[in-house]
Amino acid sequence: MKYPAGTRIRKTVEKDKKNIIYANRGMDLESDINQSNAYYREIDKALIYKKPTPIKIQEVDYTEKGKVIKKAYFDSPSTTDYNGIYKGRYIDFEAKETISSTSFPIKNIHKHQIQHMFKVEEHGGICFLIVRFVKEKKNYLLLAKDLKKFLEENTRSSIPLSYFEEYGKLIEDGYMPRLDYLKVVDKIYGGVLDGKKNTK
Amino acid sequence: MKYPAGTRIRKTVEKDKKNIIYANRGMDLESDINQSNAYYREIDKALIYKKPTPIKIQEVDYTEKGKVIKKAYFDSPSTTDYNGIYKGRYIDFEAKETISSTSFPIKNIHKHQIQHMFKVEEHGGICFLIVRFVKEKKNYLLLAKDLKKFLEENTRSSIPLSYFEEYGKLIEDGYMPRLDYLKVVDKIYGGVLDGKKNTK
Repeated sequence: MKYPAGTRIRKTVEKDKKNIIYANRGMDLESDINQSNAYYREIDKALIYKKPTPIKIQEVDYTEKGKVIKKAYFDSPSTTDYNGIYKGRYIDFEAKETISSTSFPIKNIHKHQIQHMFKVEEHGGICFLIVRFVKEKKNYLLLAKDLKKFLEENTRSSIPLSYFEEYGKLIEDGYMPRLDYLKVVDKIYGGVLDGKKNTK
Repeated sequence: MKYPAGTRIRKTVEKDKKNIIYANRGMDLESDINQSNAYYREIDKALIYKKPTPIKIQEVDYTEKGKVIKKAYFDSPSTTDYNGIYKGRYIDFEAKETISSTSFPIKNIHKHQIQHMFKVEEHGGICFLIVRFVKEKKNYLLLAKDLKKFLEENTRSSIPLSYFEEYGKLIEDGYMPRLDYLKVVDKIYGGVLDGKKNTK
C-alpha cells in the first residue's frame, strides 16, 4: 500500500500502540464536542473552546527551528475542559466517557473539577457534565446542580445510568453538529437565555 | 550558600539562561494576574483562570512513574489567555507587557486572538486587553471595542501610550489583589453588572 505524500514524516504519538488505545478511548467524545463547538462558532451561535491540556514543562531546548519541549509531565486540571459564552452567558462543562453499561464512576472527574463546577453554578453560570455511555451509544447532559444533589444524597462511588435517565437529558447525535448539546441547554433553560442574546 | 532540601532536584526550565530572560519578560504581569485571580476566587468575587499553554505533543514515553512527554512544540493560541465568570457574566481577556515607553506593538497579540476578542464582544461578554508598560510601571485596561476602534481608524503597527491614556483605564496595583482589574471593570460598567450578581 502506498501512503499519500507526507505521511511518513508523521512520527507522532499515534504510532505508539498504548497511545492508540488511549487516544481512541478519550478521543471520540472529545472530537465530537470539538466538531460541535467549531460548528457553533461557524454559525456564530456560541464561542466555546476546549482548554489546552495542562502540562508541567521541565526542559526546553533551543533549536534553529525554535523551542522544543524535551521533558514535560501531564498536570491535573484545576477546572473543566470546556468553557465559553452562549447567549451572553458563561457556559462551562466537563465531558467524560465510560465503558460501563450501568453507571458512571465519579473518580473519572477530579475532585477540584467537581468543586469548580459547583462554584460556577453558584456564580450564575451554565454548568454541566456530559457523560457518554460508550456501549449504549448514549450521551447525557447532567446539570452541576443535579450532580451536587447526587453527591449530597448518596455515598456511592458511581452514578447509576438510571440517575442520568431521570435527572439528565439525552443529547441527540447528528451530523452537524455531531452532538447538539446546546439544544438540550435551550430545553432546560427555556426562554430564559434568549433575553440575554447579543445584548449590544 | 546552602539551598533548602529538594532544591537540587529542580532541573527546570528556569536554569536555561535564555529562558530566564523570557520568563522575566512575560512572568511579572502574568504572576500578578494569577495572584489577583487566586485572590478573587478566594473571596468568591469571580472565577477567572489562565488557560494552559497550548502545545503539540509529538512523543510520549511510558515510565514506571507515569507518562512523560519527550517531544512537544509550543502551539499558537486560538483564544485569549484568561477567561471566566464575573457577576454572572462571561469575562475574557489577554494580557501583555511591553518594554516600549511610547507604544504597544500590535504584533504582540496574535491575529486570531484579536478576532476572538471581537467575537466575545459581539456575544455580549466582557472583553479587554491589559497592557503593562514596564518602564512606566503602568497597567492599562483597554476594552475590546476600543481596540477595534483603533484598528479600524489607524494603519499604525502599534498603539501609542496616549491612546491607552485616552480610551483605556489605569489599573491600580496593590498588595491584595496585586492588580485590581475588576475594580476597573466595575467602573466601566457601572451598576449594570450588579443586577446579574449570583442570580440563583
